[in-house]
Amino acid sequence: MKYVEFPERTSWRELFVRPKTASSATEEQVLRILNDVAQRGDVAVAELTSQIDKVNLDSIRVSTAEIEAARAQIKPELKLAIKIASENIRKFHKFVICPEDSMETMPGIRVWRKSVPIESVGLYIPGGTAPLFSTVLMLAIPASIAGCKRIILCTPPDKNGNINPAILYAASECGVTEIYKIGGAQAIAAMRYGTQTISPVYKIFGPGNSWVTMAKQLIAKDGFPIDMPAGPSELAVFADERVNPAFVAADLLSQCEHGADSQVVLVSTSKKVIEDVRAQIEFQLSGLLRNEFATKSLENSLAILVQTAEQGIELLNEYAPEHLILACDRAELLSTRVVNAGSVFIGEWSPESAGDYATGTNHTLPTSGNAKGWSGVSVDSFVKKITFQKLTREGLSQIARTVEVMAEAEGLLAHRNAVSIRMKQQ
Amino acid sequence: MKYVEFPERTSWRELFVRPKTASSATEEQVLRILNDVAQRGDVAVAELTSQIDKVNLDSIRVSTAEIEAARAQIKPELKLAIKIASENIRKFHKFVICPEDSMETMPGIRVWRKSVPIESVGLYIPGGTAPLFSTVLMLAIPASIAGCKRIILCTPPDKNGNINPAILYAASECGVTEIYKIGGAQAIAAMRYGTQTISPVYKIFGPGNSWVTMAKQLIAKDGFPIDMPAGPSELAVFADERVNPAFVAADLLSQCEHGADSQVVLVSTSKKVIEDVRAQIEFQLSGLLRNEFATKSLENSLAILVQTAEQGIELLNEYAPEHLILACDRAELLSTRVVNAGSVFIGEWSPESAGDYATGTNHTLPTSGNAKGWSGVSVDSFVKKITFQKLTREGLSQIARTVEVMAEAEGLLAHRNAVSIRMKQQ
Repeated sequence: MKYVEFPERTSWRELFVRPKTASSATEEQVLRILNDVAQRGDVAVAELTSQIDKVNLDSIRVSTAEIEAARAQIKPELKLAIKIASENIRKFHKFVICPEDSMETMPGIRVWRKSVPIESVGLYIPGGTAPLFSTVLMLAIPASIAGCKRIILCTPPDKNGNINPAILYAASECGVTEIYKIGGAQAIAAMRYGTQTISPVYKIFGPGNSWVTMAKQLIAKDGFPIDMPAGPSELAVFADERVNPAFVAADLLSQCEHGADSQVVLVSTSKKVIEDVRAQIEFQLSGLLRNEFATKSLENSLAILVQTAEQGIELLNEYAPEHLILACDRAELLSTRVVNAGSVFIGEWSPESAGDYATGTNHTLPTSGNAKGWSGVSVDSFVKKITFQKLTREGLSQIARTVEVMAEAEGLLAHRNAVSIRMKQQ
Repeated sequence: MKYVEFPERTSWRELFVRPKTASSATEEQVLRILNDVAQRGDVAVAELTSQIDKVNLDSIRVSTAEIEAARAQIKPELKLAIKIASENIRKFHKFVICPEDSMETMPGIRVWRKSVPIESVGLYIPGGTAPLFSTVLMLAIPASIAGCKRIILCTPPDKNGNINPAILYAASECGVTEIYKIGGAQAIAAMRYGTQTISPVYKIFGPGNSWVTMAKQLIAKDGFPIDMPAGPSELAVFADERVNPAFVAADLLSQCEHGADSQVVLVSTSKKVIEDVRAQIEFQLSGLLRNEFATKSLENSLAILVQTAEQGIELLNEYAPEHLILACDRAELLSTRVVNAGSVFIGEWSPESAGDYATGTNHTLPTSGNAKGWSGVSVDSFVKKITFQKLTREGLSQIARTVEVMAEAEGLLAHRNAVSIRMKQQ
């Protein structure tokens, strides 16, 4: 474990850069621009703006003055139309956050949203030394609850053509409707495109080796839905003097045994806690079967000393860990400050492995900092939400002018006409 | 419009293949396997299974007998552990479908889920002839409701360095916190990677030209979250004798004016309705400003005669349109059979353009058949959901054995130890 003391905020992002996973060829032309801008920032943007938009900007940020000037140019009628539309959109979007009932945004304009199960889903379960039947539960149970008609599972056979029985058992208990002996990228391809034997699915879930991961990335690039990007497993622990160092060490090692590319981060307000936990790690490591993996992943790992618990949480929000254990005083209160994490474990009696299997939360979670924008798997992952609207003549007449004005301002006269032609009708 | 009469169910998939959008280079090795399996199906799978897994299978589908044999091999203790874990997972996953309160899956095991706004989001708004300020509303309003701290907007400047005022006005009304004059792929790159001027965001939204689309696809391939894959806009209408053909024609044309690559599909149980609508299209077309686009997109479009309304909806579920208008008798009843669509417009007073602007539903919707697995944009798109768990010693003791047994069966002894070490503590 690399030890870092009181890192400056400006260094946090760099501190938490994950080891780059291999990712080869891409479409050349766009990538060249992406890399250019990623490496050279504003200069590249300015050059590209110059080349493509034929303009050289002094500042690319729009000033308040430019915004004010724009506001002054808008005709009152258009402002009103935007306001009315905004209000309706606001009403509905607030409304559909949770209960999926119908509402009227205006009299005669009834709108609603319905969760509809994705008809056909594919689950990938890796083979190899550790048969991940717990992942069968974590994927197939929410798929069943969602009401997916077809839940198919692919997993590689062993050299005798067999599949680990625990995987088959779990699948048969949890509503999987078809199981196939296919591994690697070819399984992803089969589920995506279909074969003579396997009908294609509409979304693919599950962990895998680098072939599977690359296949999922490639279909995601083409717009095909996947659960989330895959990456090595991670655990961060925030610990203070209150906690038993042996517990923390056991938690960190439980993550490290996943593979040589796993990463753990220990954050504490106490140098003594860090030292005690490291000593416990050394002590427990010798008793582990998979200690070769653990030793290697500890080399990728960090122990960080911070000034306050609040700063520790801020730092951990920048890290955005897959799993976060708060083994400290005021753990539940501190948990309300967590904004980037997959799943959070509160207090010293909440080890990660409890959630990996049995607390009820899902263990398919975003890694590699993706918790900043992705959620873990849930029933939501197995449905899509369709919106509906039913207008009466009176309802349409209430927004007719709004639509006509906005459509016209966007230069879309056929859009305007679809309303106007109805309003002309007696 | 191509006319198709009573298409066989087996031909539906082929009937609805969208014109392929250009997509160039990819990572070679995995793509070769994907294409191989996509083109040659089972044969390729079998060959790859043989090469990689070193086994030749008679059948790749797992038989009932194999499942039964597997079940028989599982020890009762493990079956029980799986059952207990399954029940807890089921309870929680059912529970979190909607109200985000906390619950106990077992006494002393409290679990909950929290919607947390994505801290920083980027919106792209195209420039060009039609200034899509309505899309500013559709993206920035849900972002605001979600509570995103930074909502940044990129849009290309014109030759004089200006941005359309309607876009600036809409942005300033709807909670956008920063606006930049950057267009194309470089805007996506700037928002993704950050520059000296622009801090990076955690998710990117919005439509764009092929450069923007390719940039979004490439970042999606790397696991970066985007709203959804982009494609040409689409509208399907199911119409019967009840409807005014002039209304249907106006709706179809409103979609066609978006661009030469737009597609519309008209499905009806009446040949006369199809003929009347086509006559109305010819009549209205001459009055349209953007009739060049409309004429071209009509060439991509279909008019399909079906036997019954129910069959029409089934066919349309295979098409999975971005927008679906049900202009027919029993429209609301039929809408309950819709499983694949972005947004549904019920009855003849619900034109698509009403929803494009002002009914309150979102107009950022999945195209190209992606409605089979993707949802439109909503407040959900701007949050991630973090799970939490807090166990007492008693709570952990209730699942300790479950975790130990499952971890051991997966060969993960450090996972087991994280629980055992706690249970040994007095």
